[in-house]
Amino acid sequence: MSQDQYVQIQSYTFAQPPNELVLKSGGKLGPITLAYETYGKLNRDKSNAILIFHALTGDAHAAGLHKDSGTLGWWDPMIGAGKAFDTDKYFVICINCIGGCKGSTGPSSMNPATGKPYGMSFPVITIEDMVQSQKRLMDHLGIKKLLCASGGSMGGLMAMEWAVRFPGTLRSAILIATNYKHTAQQIALHEAARQAIMSDPNWNQGDYYGKAVPAQGMAVSRMIGHITYMSERSMEEKFGRKLQGKERVGYDFSHDFEVQNYLHYRGASFVQRFDANSYLYISKALDYFDLSEDTDLLTVFKGVQTKFLVITFTSDWLYPSYQSKDVVKAMKANDIDVSFIEINTTYGHDSFLVEIDGQSRLVKSFLENIK
Amino acid sequence: MSQDQYVQIQSYTFAQPPNELVLKSGGKLGPITLAYETYGKLNRDKSNAILIFHALTGDAHAAGLHKDSGTLGWWDPMIGAGKAFDTDKYFVICINCIGGCKGSTGPSSMNPATGKPYGMSFPVITIEDMVQSQKRLMDHLGIKKLLCASGGSMGGLMAMEWAVRFPGTLRSAILIATNYKHTAQQIALHEAARQAIMSDPNWNQGDYYGKAVPAQGMAVSRMIGHITYMSERSMEEKFGRKLQGKERVGYDFSHDFEVQNYLHYRGASFVQRFDANSYLYISKALDYFDLSEDTDLLTVFKGVQTKFLVITFTSDWLYPSYQSKDVVKAMKANDIDVSFIEINTTYGHDSFLVEIDGQSRLVKSFLENIK
Repeated sequence: MSQDQYVQIQSYTFAQPPNELVLKSGGKLGPITLAYETYGKLNRDKSNAILIFHALTGDAHAAGLHKDSGTLGWWDPMIGAGKAFDTDKYFVICINCIGGCKGSTGPSSMNPATGKPYGMSFPVITIEDMVQSQKRLMDHLGIKKLLCASGGSMGGLMAMEWAVRFPGTLRSAILIATNYKHTAQQIALHEAARQAIMSDPNWNQGDYYGKAVPAQGMAVSRMIGHITYMSERSMEEKFGRKLQGKERVGYDFSHDFEVQNYLHYRGASFVQRFDANSYLYISKALDYFDLSEDTDLLTVFKGVQTKFLVITFTSDWLYPSYQSKDVVKAMKANDIDVSFIEINTTYGHDSFLVEIDGQSRLVKSFLENIK
Repeated sequence: MSQDQYVQIQSYTFAQPPNELVLKSGGKLGPITLAYETYGKLNRDKSNAILIFHALTGDAHAAGLHKDSGTLGWWDPMIGAGKAFDTDKYFVICINCIGGCKGSTGPSSMNPATGKPYGMSFPVITIEDMVQSQKRLMDHLGIKKLLCASGGSMGGLMAMEWAVRFPGTLRSAILIATNYKHTAQQIALHEAARQAIMSDPNWNQGDYYGKAVPAQGMAVSRMIGHITYMSERSMEEKFGRKLQGKERVGYDFSHDFEVQNYLHYRGASFVQRFDANSYLYISKALDYFDLSEDTDLLTVFKGVQTKFLVITFTSDWLYPSYQSKDVVKAMKANDIDVSFIEINTTYGHDSFLVEIDGQSRLVKSFLENIK
């Protein structure tokens, strides 16, 4: 692989005043740095830019290969030459959200006022704040109108928020496995995961940087997460009651079953790759999001001229299809051009990451037809 | 209320040799005490006895009122004069399972070999062991044949196990919201809950008796539990995005939403009423259970002459109906007399505790027709 096939993370720090963001909460955050990656080339009239939003624990590395770590982007099968988001045609951008821990300003960043990491002194941020910060980067890049914005799960919320907040700046949006407001069950699952982290003595009110991290709490929170990202059926097909390296159960509290081992593996790797406080802040942003908060869903989409593709998955019980159908109904009532497809899969919520063929076909033909 | 309307807990300690139980694991447990309650009167030929099995964190107090605490039994709307399990006709028994913490021998009991609570030196027990111990109590009471055995969730597993293990001793069984073996998802949910407890430093390898209990870990485990006991819809109907004592969200990590408050309340009350180690042992017993372990489900029911009523609930995603349907199919293939009813409810797995009308009608008419 030649040198130029590697992708590199870039970063943008709000330089022009205001070098801070007024948050939805009324608080302020600044200075702000955004980590981002781009794939493909921006055309002369800057009309081929596509913004990809990541999910809760995602990052800016959506595609390609990092030279040092050798890691592939989290949506690499969807983004690249000849792929759904075809980098021969489009200029694709993915930005790590504020609150994150992969280069953008978040609770693990240095608080310039104290010279120490923010920890829990980081202000509570919202999906709206994330989108606002990303718009600043688009302005910086001189991109006035995006060809498309797309994401799964939290990424879908951001695409929806962009369409509503900045009408006229987005020609199309692809919303995948998402919702327009978190339900009680979605909030409850996050609350259990957050409490797992905050109960770990190493969490220490968020002040653990440079010390032992709340590894056990993070592992439990990730176990909860992974159960919700898979479907009952995909867990059954992948693990069932298969034992882990033994012929009979051990009648003890070790990991008899492969599914236990899988959860522990996922829990441990989460500790390596993510920041506990970022999980708290971003999950909270998700819970707070309600596109219909001050009005109703019908009114929200009034005047929106973006063309939409909405994709859900039959086995996704974390963001079940009916939630997206409510969005589609509200769009249709506003005469918005929207296509809705429910893909038949067994992978649960994870489908947006792993069900590539169906999504690729839909995304490709949708993008080709954007006027 | 007159004195005789109160119910009292009774107990039976295996007196006759063997005063211990050989466990499925090959280990031994003894001496064993079982706490139980009875309602109604055993008739002269001892033919009207019904055994009720409780669920994971249940106990022997299934019906009536305890004088001191004033607590009603966990299935009181189903058991009593004129109710589904009509105590004017039937002699109803409910036994706290071994491994429990409400009077039967469990990890919080004194280990006679050390003079200290067992803690994690308690042997791993199984559903089979629980049923075996309960059979000993029936022998002690001189009850050779039960009119019925019934329970929801784990209670249903025990009723199924009894029918298969002691054919000829059970005229009928009512299996509610249950399964014949835990699936990967069911095991995974238990594993996350167990890890929440075992990650709490107060758990201290199970040695916390007389000291601070692993309250935070227990609370998280209970949050996970309660999310799985309700349905997405029942959570939405009960809580939605309702705020807790405020008009706007607080943009902080307090409990903005009522559903968060509910989970914290449930978590805290669990700490008061249950033993963490009992949760570990009983959840493990559930995960280990597989009625078809050494053969297949079809063969398991060969020769069983018990008449069955199998009840499931449409919104129960923890023990979905298809699992019981597999059991019913295997029974039918063995020419077993079985009725299967799926009740339309929104309450999720909790339905077996709260959906009383439908269950009562079914149970009543089923019991009246036992020959």
